[in-house]
Amino acid sequence: MAEAAAQDLLLAAAFVSDAQYNRNIPFKTSPEAVRLYQLYNHWMMRTATYFFIFLNLSLALFEEPAVYPLPFLATSVLEVLCLLVFLGRLTHFAKVTLHNVFWKDTKNICIMVAILLSLTDLAIYGVLRLYDVRSIRWSRIVRPIFLINFAESRQIRRAFRSIRNTLPEITYVFLLFMFSLLMFSLMALKLFGERNLQTAEGLPYFRNYLEIVFDLYVLVTTANSPDVMMPAFDFSSWYALFFIAFVIINTYIFMSLFLAVVYNNYKKHLKNEIRKLAYMKRRKMIEAFNLLKEKEGEQFVVREARWKQLVKLVAPDTSSSHRELLLRISDDEQKGFVGTVYLPWDQADPCHSAADKKSFVQLADLLNIQVVTLKIRRHPLARWVPALYGSAPSRLLRSVVRHRAFVWTYDAIILINAIFIALDEESPYISYAEWVFLAVYVLEILLKVYTYEPREFFGKTQFWNWFDTLIIFAALTATILNATLKSTMKYNSQQILDIVFILRVLRLIRIVDSIQRFRVIMNTLINIVPTMLTFGGLTLVVYCVFAIIGMELFHGKIQYFPANSNTPHALECGNPALKDSLFARGKYCKNNFNNFASSFIVLMELTVVNQWHVFANGFANVTAQPAKLYFIAFHIVMVIIIVNIFVSFILEAFFVEYSLEKSEVETAIEQKIQELGMGVQEIQDSGCSAAAHVRGRDTPGGRRPFL
Amino acid sequence: MAEAAAQDLLLAAAFVSDAQYNRNIPFKTSPEAVRLYQLYNHWMMRTATYFFIFLNLSLALFEEPAVYPLPFLATSVLEVLCLLVFLGRLTHFAKVTLHNVFWKDTKNICIMVAILLSLTDLAIYGVLRLYDVRSIRWSRIVRPIFLINFAESRQIRRAFRSIRNTLPEITYVFLLFMFSLLMFSLMALKLFGERNLQTAEGLPYFRNYLEIVFDLYVLVTTANSPDVMMPAFDFSSWYALFFIAFVIINTYIFMSLFLAVVYNNYKKHLKNEIRKLAYMKRRKMIEAFNLLKEKEGEQFVVREARWKQLVKLVAPDTSSSHRELLLRISDDEQKGFVGTVYLPWDQADPCHSAADKKSFVQLADLLNIQVVTLKIRRHPLARWVPALYGSAPSRLLRSVVRHRAFVWTYDAIILINAIFIALDEESPYISYAEWVFLAVYVLEILLKVYTYEPREFFGKTQFWNWFDTLIIFAALTATILNATLKSTMKYNSQQILDIVFILRVLRLIRIVDSIQRFRVIMNTLINIVPTMLTFGGLTLVVYCVFAIIGMELFHGKIQYFPANSNTPHALECGNPALKDSLFARGKYCKNNFNNFASSFIVLMELTVVNQWHVFANGFANVTAQPAKLYFIAFHIVMVIIIVNIFVSFILEAFFVEYSLEKSEVETAIEQKIQELGMGVQEIQDSGCSAAAHVRGRDTPGGRRPFL
Repeated sequence: MAEAAAQDLLLAAAFVSDAQYNRNIPFKTSPEAVRLYQLYNHWMMRTATYFFIFLNLSLALFEEPAVYPLPFLATSVLEVLCLLVFLGRLTHFAKVTLHNVFWKDTKNICIMVAILLSLTDLAIYGVLRLYDVRSIRWSRIVRPIFLINFAESRQIRRAFRSIRNTLPEITYVFLLFMFSLLMFSLMALKLFGERNLQTAEGLPYFRNYLEIVFDLYVLVTTANSPDVMMPAFDFSSWYALFFIAFVIINTYIFMSLFLAVVYNNYKKHLKNEIRKLAYMKRRKMIEAFNLLKEKEGEQFVVREARWKQLVKLVAPDTSSSHRELLLRISDDEQKGFVGTVYLPWDQADPCHSAADKKSFVQLADLLNIQVVTLKIRRHPLARWVPALYGSAPSRLLRSVVRHRAFVWTYDAIILINAIFIALDEESPYISYAEWVFLAVYVLEILLKVYTYEPREFFGKTQFWNWFDTLIIFAALTATILNATLKSTMKYNSQQILDIVFILRVLRLIRIVDSIQRFRVIMNTLINIVPTMLTFGGLTLVVYCVFAIIGMELFHGKIQYFPANSNTPHALECGNPALKDSLFARGKYCKNNFNNFASSFIVLMELTVVNQWHVFANGFANVTAQPAKLYFIAFHIVMVIIIVNIFVSFILEAFFVEYSLEKSEVETAIEQKIQELGMGVQEIQDSGCSAAAHVRGRDTPGGRRPFL
Repeated sequence: MAEAAAQDLLLAAAFVSDAQYNRNIPFKTSPEAVRLYQLYNHWMMRTATYFFIFLNLSLALFEEPAVYPLPFLATSVLEVLCLLVFLGRLTHFAKVTLHNVFWKDTKNICIMVAILLSLTDLAIYGVLRLYDVRSIRWSRIVRPIFLINFAESRQIRRAFRSIRNTLPEITYVFLLFMFSLLMFSLMALKLFGERNLQTAEGLPYFRNYLEIVFDLYVLVTTANSPDVMMPAFDFSSWYALFFIAFVIINTYIFMSLFLAVVYNNYKKHLKNEIRKLAYMKRRKMIEAFNLLKEKEGEQFVVREARWKQLVKLVAPDTSSSHRELLLRISDDEQKGFVGTVYLPWDQADPCHSAADKKSFVQLADLLNIQVVTLKIRRHPLARWVPALYGSAPSRLLRSVVRHRAFVWTYDAIILINAIFIALDEESPYISYAEWVFLAVYVLEILLKVYTYEPREFFGKTQFWNWFDTLIIFAALTATILNATLKSTMKYNSQQILDIVFILRVLRLIRIVDSIQRFRVIMNTLINIVPTMLTFGGLTLVVYCVFAIIGMELFHGKIQYFPANSNTPHALECGNPALKDSLFARGKYCKNNFNNFASSFIVLMELTVVNQWHVFANGFANVTAQPAKLYFIAFHIVMVIIIVNIFVSFILEAFFVEYSLEKSEVETAIEQKIQELGMGVQEIQDSGCSAAAHVRGRDTPGGRRPFL
């Protein structure tokens, strides 16, 4: 009996934990399966999976063409290891989920196919290599599939789903845009084709239809404005009207249209997902409730003792005062049990389920709210040397540090520091000044630690204190290291010096924190970092795929030689086909697809868009003409779709930050904390108090991005 | 007594008309003032005002430095004429509004000051000119004030107010952005300043702090990517990280932040304005009601006869069947009068006032809804030659034209036409083909007019029929003109030929209308044209101001010489200071501020952003260094603020189009039309029927852009 109760508790904890972290996995309910499931969700397992995903992706750095070459054997062993880990993770997942659910999920099928393909390709490549036949490692482009499809990267998958849903609509707008482009190109051919005009490079201007289409496509991205217009404009001023009409229609209207379509779909899609998540959360919580319920008079309830056991199991590191607080919110009238679900889940508005106070269902949301328990501790020095710490000079010192003028003084010091940094380094006085500044900053940190309680000063939410301390001590270390190297070996390490410079400038950022308005914007920016990381994952996937294709297409075609090299065709990037091209003239030789890192940098430059036609033309010169298609495809995928998704991300995140009012659950907690004012004071004696600073977790269910 | 009633009716009509067109002018209520007020709002008066505003703005084309020079006397007479018209319009306005309201309105003060300044400046300039002293016509930059401040251009004023309200928030983000820029510049100076690197042009790289700030500001606009990175990247690949971090933070995050701030404020502001408009509209309608009300039992009402008189006065060109329909909606139970205002306006939610059916108040909204009264007329030929028109071959012909295959055949013909256009013009067969195509298209229009009733075919809402017919007949005229010129004078006029080419390609657009999905997007685009025109006005104002300043600063500094000119320094735009500059090498000489039209084209190119730093450096070379500030200021105003407002416009307009459901008033009308189904059929005998196609006017009150 007791064992059955313990098992129910375990299962209920698994449901609550799923609801808390928005996991939607239908797991088996046998005791072993639940234990396995908890292991599956353990943070170490998840971190390990991520580690192997990134290891697998970063193999491209060490494989031919390599940034840091490793023997084929080493990389293939590592790859097999990664694939085995993925297989293990998948098997683990299969063991905890229901059989038919597992095999219906395309995610799992995708992973299996990807593992199979990778192994086959690796085997074929290895065998061919033994016989000295060079082949293509085509399976490398399936590697990002692991990043997308492992259950942990829900956000990235959502972004991809959002893209997939947007595609039909985007396609229609894109076709209309292409139609407009083709029409304008036809007009351009008729208007300028027979005028015998020449471009600034002396090439024929607007003669060939396909080239006109490419040139005007580039104009849509604004990358060749105004060059593409100048020959026609020089011929007759009226022709400027053609290009103005083109830019207004295609660059301004169509590109805004793309953003509108992407943003609209993104919003719609996100709304649906949040609704689904809320529904799923409620369902899981009700299942947990049903496991733990006991009859109390007319209704079913969960008794206080079981409730506490559950919370301890789900969130082992909440303090007892925090748990007490949550209980007081859930059991408002202190009856000794937590109420039932008031509305059946299929009737309630799923979006407002969290608003249903006093019920058991809100526990998942309550657990997501970060309650900072401020421990009012005495300063360690006050305990160790109370006489000294409490003496008049010590008290004066501490009140000076707490005074506003202290902050202002240091702001002034930072400004003076900025001037010194800008000044010339050569003068010895200035390099001495650097030591003075370092000493002053270290003193500041020591004074603050002397005044404030150290554990409070370095609390989890004290971003700027951590930032300051890390920057200062890194700068101190690097400066000492550099000085040692200089005095002992008469040698300046460039890397260390660069790091010293960067740290020295980063120190100045602190001044932003002193101005209230800036702090607000900075906090908003810091809050949207998680959203941006999702976008980073999305970008990584697209970059990986395009980098691997790019390396197959363009590897070795363009080489970089240092300025004083006397290799033949060093100025033409080692390729005579580039003679007189804009690519060689712009000295772009180092932008090539010769290894994974270079490819990423080229793709970054293509994302920024400017001069991408020079790249496209350059690579088309050294390979076949269809090379341009690669660059156009990248532009469509990255700039038209992904960057617009990113802008939608940022817009939405910002509107949410702007319109953020505290959710009802958050308000309930704050209210309770205030209500319990005295109670909290009493608890304080035991070393803890619950602070009124409450903030929702950044999960899609925790926020309400839409009204 | 009858006279008093007529005066009340006139006054009520003025109130209703104000409510209908969202005018918020507190006019005097004396009979003469109301008549003057109606004259003030007459479309001819408004058109005349616009004509003189644009005449005044376009004077810049004829004044020194002129595109088409006119003697100073002519332009100054025209300017004085414009100013007198503005003064007249303002006096007219003063006569109809209340005294204290007039003098409190900054708009009116602005106009008066602008007129005064313009006259003073003109006088001073004229006098100095008599003594051959050249001075600056500085008052020309106040001319756009007339475009902004005349009451007709409410939309532009709203956009400006929106900008003004956004400014404080934008400023904080901008300061933070500048801080980030300065920090990165300092880092760049420290990292690259002492490496003795050189740019692709062989100039020193990143030595001077201010130049670094400018270069990195240009990088934010992406205009010098990747050139600005290449020297550092060639030196060490790791330095790419610096530029990647810079682009992510400043280009992607900060620029999205600007869009987010602008869009957020724009939305908030628009919401407030719409609320205010709805409130004002309701108030005006209630004043009208109070003028016309009579006691009927317990309540006040407006009797049917007076109601009809009022509608006739407000909208003289509504058909009697339309009026009947509106009456049936307003007087739902056919009691012979129109109901009272159910809720006092100060209690009602102003946003939902229009939903308050059956009341008098909704009349303004009802009048705004476009009800297409389709007249079911017999074809004129059926009346003139009934035997012939009704004969079997004629009926067959008409059913052929009505068949889907007819549309498909013409789509196929358009595609074949497109191929012929792309082919070479020289072959005589192809130029004959052009005549064949023209004939085929003319035949299509004739057949359609034969089949469909001509007045229906050329109805107000038949955009594509109008488009087709205009394009085909313009092409026919131009082609015949060209052929005549060619055969009689052996001479091809370039202008006519260009127009023929453009018309020929425009014909192809028709194919878009055949595909349902494209038609939807096109209709959305056509619907947001009014919104875009507002933006056009905004752009015009900014361009005018910057063009006039630009002409003062840079006039004559850069000259364009045709390619075969042997003027000294022809390749350096007539200015030796430009030797070896990117500006001269890019052959940008025709991009100068030598007249109003050129300035506009340069500003357009600066708006597109690409290569703007080449312009900035070029003009800084030929004048003083601070010239760059002009270009930076233009970038901040135009690209950071105005283009973001434009994108907000488009986004909002699109979301509204996407989420557009019919308003309650529109639904009420459709319902009534269906209810009256039989009744409408009866009316039909008198030649009219009310069609169910109902569409709201594009006024801010008519739509509900926000939920």
